[in-house]
Parts: sequence; C-alpha cells; structure tokens
Amino acid sequence: MRVDSCPLCQRANEKVLWQSDDLRVIAVDDANYPGYCRVIWNDHVGEMTDLKESDRGNLMRIVFVVETGLRKILRPTKINLASLGNQVPHVHWHVIPRFTDDPTFPGAIWAPAVRGVTSERTLNWAEFSAWLDDQLGRSRAK
Amino acid sequence: MRVDSCPLCQRANEKVLWQSDDLRVIAVDDANYPGYCRVIWNDHVGEMTDLKESDRGNLMRIVFVVETGLRKILRPTKINLASLGNQVPHVHWHVIPRFTDDPTFPGAIWAPAVRGVTSERTLNWAEFSAWLDDQLGRSRAK
Repeated sequence: MRVDSCPLCQRANEKVLWQSDDLRVIAVDDANYPGYCRVIWNDHVGEMTDLKESDRGNLMRIVFVVETGLRKILRPTKINLASLGNQVPHVHWHVIPRFTDDPTFPGAIWAPAVRGVTSERTLNWAEFSAWLDDQLGRSRAK
Repeated sequence: MRVDSCPLCQRANEKVLWQSDDLRVIAVDDANYPGYCRVIWNDHVGEMTDLKESDRGNLMRIVFVVETGLRKILRPTKINLASLGNQVPHVHWHVIPRFTDDPTFPGAIWAPAVRGVTSERTLNWAEFSAWLDDQLGRSRAK
C-alpha cells in the first residue's frame, strides 16, 4: 500500500486524544466498544519488527499507558490488544476494553456478534485525553 | 478463573519450542495458519499491565523475536499480534503469520472464513525451535 492511499497516513476524521512526533492515540467511536482506542505509529511502517528497538519500546509503552487508563476509568472485564494490519499495513494497535455484555464477548471483536449492545457505558474522551496529558506530558496540538 | 482450572496453568498438550523460567513459546498446530505460535507468561497474570515493567519488556522482546523468525522463514504477507484472553485470562500472545490465501485474510483469524485452506505451506517446528535457541540462548528442557 502506498502512502498516498493509506488511510492512516491520510489521517482522515481522526479524534486525536494524545500525540507526539512519532505516534498518536485516537478514539474509535464504536457504540459496541466504549473506550476503544487505537495507537498509530505516524510513519508508514508495516510491521513492529520494521521499527528500531527504541521506537518499538516507546510505542508499546504508550499502548500500556492507554491500557492502564482504560482499566482505571472503565474497569473492563478484560483488555484486548491487537496489531493486525491485514487491510492497512501501517503499524497500529487496537486497545479495546471488553465487557461480558458486549456484542462479541468472550470472542474477539472480529467474531460474529452473539448479542446486541446491552449497555449504555461510555467513556468521556475529553477526560481521558486530559488523563493522557497528565501521564505522558502535554500532547502536541490535538 | 482459578489456577487449577486454567488451561494455560495446566499446560496440557503443549508443543514447547522455547522456554525460560518466566515464559514459553509454543506451536499452535492449525493447518489454516502455518507457523502460528503463542507466547505464554508462566504465572497466572491477567493483563499486561499487571506485570512489572521489566517483565512486560522481556515478554514483548520474545514476542518480537518470534515475529522476526516467522518473517524470516515463512515470509508471510503480514504478522498479526494479539493478546486477548477473554476466555482464558492468563497473559498470552498470539503471533500469527498471515497469507493472502489463508481462510480469513484480510480479516482477523477470528472472523468467519471466506475460503478453505488453499496452501500446503508448513513450518518445520524443530528447525524453528533450534532457531529460537540460537537467538535466545539455550531453552530450558522443552
């Protein structure tokens, strides 16, 4: 996939919660999965092992800060982490709070739904964004 | 889930490729996904952020060595990494080489299949296990 056709390079319609020169944390607005975030490496790199070790470590550090915040605020049953990229081979991590009453639990969110949305749980993105600033230092302009 | 009912604590029928005191790399024998490995933390810990930072770093280092080896040997279209644990909340990573002709590509492997197995690709586990020994130092008894 070329950079000019890569949606993660184009950054269309992203709700950025926190960002540095290297990466950004965005909100995934999905009523099925409140608090679902993605952590996206800014450069168009395909695999984690294409990154140099220090960048890889820095990216994982941010993923785990996001996990920590989501656990603290939402108290999910489980956190799911995934770096797939089969459709968009540009390194990005899914950080997904899971609840026993969400549509696919205990399957992966990519499995067929076994129930409808049964919760009105939400995450206040502005508060979570401010929490990330507190943990990680002030974000570049969001 | 209690330790005595946790399949990852029980270690039933595991084909161990490499292991240390802290973790093990096992082969997942799935004809749909040649080279599919899991990296399992030995202790019964639920989330990555329940591990101390040094342990988390060490676990990710091994995940990325497995990714490196699978890329080198199988040359997959993509590597998928995932830590879900909704059914077995004991930290483990799926490391899955993906190919355009596998049953679910470009979806996640947990999505419904869109084709049958169309390849006879295989990974020689004994060779991969030896490669891990070379990279990581001699394994504890496998």
